[in-house]
Amino acid sequence: MGYSIITISREYGSGGRNIGKAVAEKLGYEFYDNALVDKIAKESGFAEEIIKDAGEYATSGNSFLFSLSMSNLSEINMPSISYQIYAVQRKIITELAEKGNCVIVGRCADYILKDREDVLNVFISADMEFRKNRIINVYNEGGNKPEKMLRDKDKKRKTYYRYYTDSEWGMSHNYHICLDSSKFGIEKCADIISDIAK
Amino acid sequence: MGYSIITISREYGSGGRNIGKAVAEKLGYEFYDNALVDKIAKESGFAEEIIKDAGEYATSGNSFLFSLSMSNLSEINMPSISYQIYAVQRKIITELAEKGNCVIVGRCADYILKDREDVLNVFISADMEFRKNRIINVYNEGGNKPEKMLRDKDKKRKTYYRYYTDSEWGMSHNYHICLDSSKFGIEKCADIISDIAK
Repeated sequence: MGYSIITISREYGSGGRNIGKAVAEKLGYEFYDNALVDKIAKESGFAEEIIKDAGEYATSGNSFLFSLSMSNLSEINMPSISYQIYAVQRKIITELAEKGNCVIVGRCADYILKDREDVLNVFISADMEFRKNRIINVYNEGGNKPEKMLRDKDKKRKTYYRYYTDSEWGMSHNYHICLDSSKFGIEKCADIISDIAK
Repeated sequence: MGYSIITISREYGSGGRNIGKAVAEKLGYEFYDNALVDKIAKESGFAEEIIKDAGEYATSGNSFLFSLSMSNLSEINMPSISYQIYAVQRKIITELAEKGNCVIVGRCADYILKDREDVLNVFISADMEFRKNRIINVYNEGGNKPEKMLRDKDKKRKTYYRYYTDSEWGMSHNYHICLDSSKFGIEKCADIISDIAK
């Protein structure tokens, strides 16, 4: 069978976003990464810059501190920004899946759509060297401590994912296929995924 | 590039062993599962039944209790059975890899061979329903608590792997490709892996 919705979760710097884009092109699917941020910003009323971070990262890599920051406000009377964004994200991702033929990057889409048979959940990882090279040379990020930046990003994504899904980010059991982009390269990963999705 | 050594790690009941066997047949590679147990038994002098369990499972799913059981004996004067088996496993797996063109199931082979470029490390997971059905119908195991048996097996493999590799069993980052056999089926998983390995 083919899959009409592909979700891509990824370690920062693994090239997961580019793999998702290439898969969308190969299959003629819509690609939702920045386009998703746009939609969430419009519907929630928050600025795009806020959505980019607060829709995927915990404010702290420490899960206790993050949970504490979330419980400081009454959920019913005054939901936190993170809760509000998650609710809008969830709604939009569910609507996009209804239309089908799309690739969605990040934002717990794998978990949100986990009960649909037509979804292929992908996770992309890569070794530290590959990720360091990418953030330095492609994104001009990381300063003089690229490894620290990457570990910090991983921690915050992990904490965010754990909080909203009660599952472990990056654990193979939570995805249908996981690929190491530093082993295969970006193009080959896109080929493998699109061949399976066809 | 092709890969001359394929290691298959797997959740119990996921069909990982059968996938490995099918891959070996497709590629014309040697298949080491029971054949590996034979070799380890001959070289270590322990019975095959002991090797089967003590070469992949912690004696307890509790990592503290397992570590305690390992530290009760002086490693130098009287290495525990688990240590002795691990050492023989490590030696044999390294020798098999030197010969190449083989599929090796379990036994931390992914970690033991992690510095070789020609190795493809695979992890197979599956959902609980699929695994329950397989152990009941294919292996006639699990009694009236198949789910408990599977969770217990997972815990013991996880503890064993953590002890000898200091890494997390089943975490996508530790493998090159992870597949959900309950999503794709055994045959399709074998096709995906052998296509990549060619």
